[in-house]
Amino acid sequence: PEFEKIAIFGLGLIGGSIAIAARSTWPTGLVIGVDEKSVLEQAMVLSAIDVASDDPVVIAEADLVILAAPVRVNIRLLGELAQNLSGNAVVTDVSSTKRVITEASKNLPGRLRFVGGHPLGGAPRGGIEHARPDLFQKRPWIFTPTDETDRESVEKLQRFVTALGAEPFTLSPSEHDRVLAFLSHVPQLTASVLMHIVGEAVGDSGLSLSGRGLADTTRLATSPASIWRDICLTNTDEVREALDVLISELELLREDLSTGDDLVRIFESAGKWRRLLAQK
Amino acid sequence: PEFEKIAIFGLGLIGGSIAIAARSTWPTGLVIGVDEKSVLEQAMVLSAIDVASDDPVVIAEADLVILAAPVRVNIRLLGELAQNLSGNAVVTDVSSTKRVITEASKNLPGRLRFVGGHPLGGAPRGGIEHARPDLFQKRPWIFTPTDETDRESVEKLQRFVTALGAEPFTLSPSEHDRVLAFLSHVPQLTASVLMHIVGEAVGDSGLSLSGRGLADTTRLATSPASIWRDICLTNTDEVREALDVLISELELLREDLSTGDDLVRIFESAGKWRRLLAQK
Repeated sequence: PEFEKIAIFGLGLIGGSIAIAARSTWPTGLVIGVDEKSVLEQAMVLSAIDVASDDPVVIAEADLVILAAPVRVNIRLLGELAQNLSGNAVVTDVSSTKRVITEASKNLPGRLRFVGGHPLGGAPRGGIEHARPDLFQKRPWIFTPTDETDRESVEKLQRFVTALGAEPFTLSPSEHDRVLAFLSHVPQLTASVLMHIVGEAVGDSGLSLSGRGLADTTRLATSPASIWRDICLTNTDEVREALDVLISELELLREDLSTGDDLVRIFESAGKWRRLLAQK
Repeated sequence: PEFEKIAIFGLGLIGGSIAIAARSTWPTGLVIGVDEKSVLEQAMVLSAIDVASDDPVVIAEADLVILAAPVRVNIRLLGELAQNLSGNAVVTDVSSTKRVITEASKNLPGRLRFVGGHPLGGAPRGGIEHARPDLFQKRPWIFTPTDETDRESVEKLQRFVTALGAEPFTLSPSEHDRVLAFLSHVPQLTASVLMHIVGEAVGDSGLSLSGRGLADTTRLATSPASIWRDICLTNTDEVREALDVLISELELLREDLSTGDDLVRIFESAGKWRRLLAQK
């Protein structure tokens, strides 16, 4: 195995799934979970971890530390960890934005082997109760090293996630944040705004008349506000630019509803991209 | 059975599913399909219809006529049918907008028993090859009678769709068009615009990095432009108002990304409505 002792901060869907997948891939390794007591109890019951702790000090001997809390918590943890970690430990995170945490990692005292990461596994519902070892199977796992990042750490992490079934990709932190604003952040915001305005407009009785299309289009709308607030606070400029593109296309469509020419153009483009997406 | 001879104009997903469901519910009845030759051949191969025709004259003896083509074709057919139909025939449609076709039905010569209808069955893909008899099972089927509509025809249609497994609802044409602008038309436009801007921004290689969220949110984006152009041309004012609400909430969110207060408000409302929707 690439790593013998893996400490995971935050045992939600992603952290929990990494724990379960790592334990089943390397039965002799040690997986240490750090979270609130109630989550740790659940993780022990699910056999997701070997050792439970709510104290960062226990991870002093870990050779891999994975930050799997919301992004702004991960940034804070990164600062707290610097003192406690062994010199050889590799540190990665699974946050949805990469520029701010990468910048934060550069200001740490000592030589911290940090490599930003972002697995694109997804599931309808969060929480360790929905964690599963195949969450990353054939899914992209993006790493965002910079020129200063230790190459050996990147390669070890790439082998690690490949063993979990994922397909490693490399982007710069800036490329990541721009692409994900479009692929993930704006779709989430759109789904939430759409569900909000539809619910407010038609009410409970109106929703009884809805078809499957609304349900699919708004599936993301139960995502927790706190996580997405963190994401937008750490990717404000890119999310804003992508929202501007969305709003201006919606406005074009709105102006042209009585002829439908923009509608046809947009639908033909959307159909082409959606069929490509279906092949991924 | 409520009806002995059912003529269906347009054998796509909806028309085809009505045909198959009616044939299996009333084996002694006659289902006449009207469409292009290639579609009629497919319908015969699938045993969806008893009689195939591309000539409206054959439906002179039908006691139920169902218009299941795109809405503006249905409006044209309504005018063409007036001469050919027997005086007792009930006419309904399955179009996604109801005001324009209901108005058109009032201008017809003679006494035409027209009742606007809209089944809210839905499926990922259209076309008779995806038709199935349980498409309407436990799904709403909205009728939009006016004060002038023949009550007996409405009741016969309600019994007819109940026998197909659907749950009949009644709305006025105006209520229908307002509610559906939010429940269906704007979600469709949003999914298409979103897929269009995401594809254009990230390209083919970027789409390889997308998660399941984007795929769900944009599932509707392969819907055909022609059908949705028709829908928007016959519901322009309500779609425009609903788009305005969407755009103004997106703008609030955009302005507030660096604090996230509107984001939290919108996500909490959206989560509440989405959980209600999941219970429907």
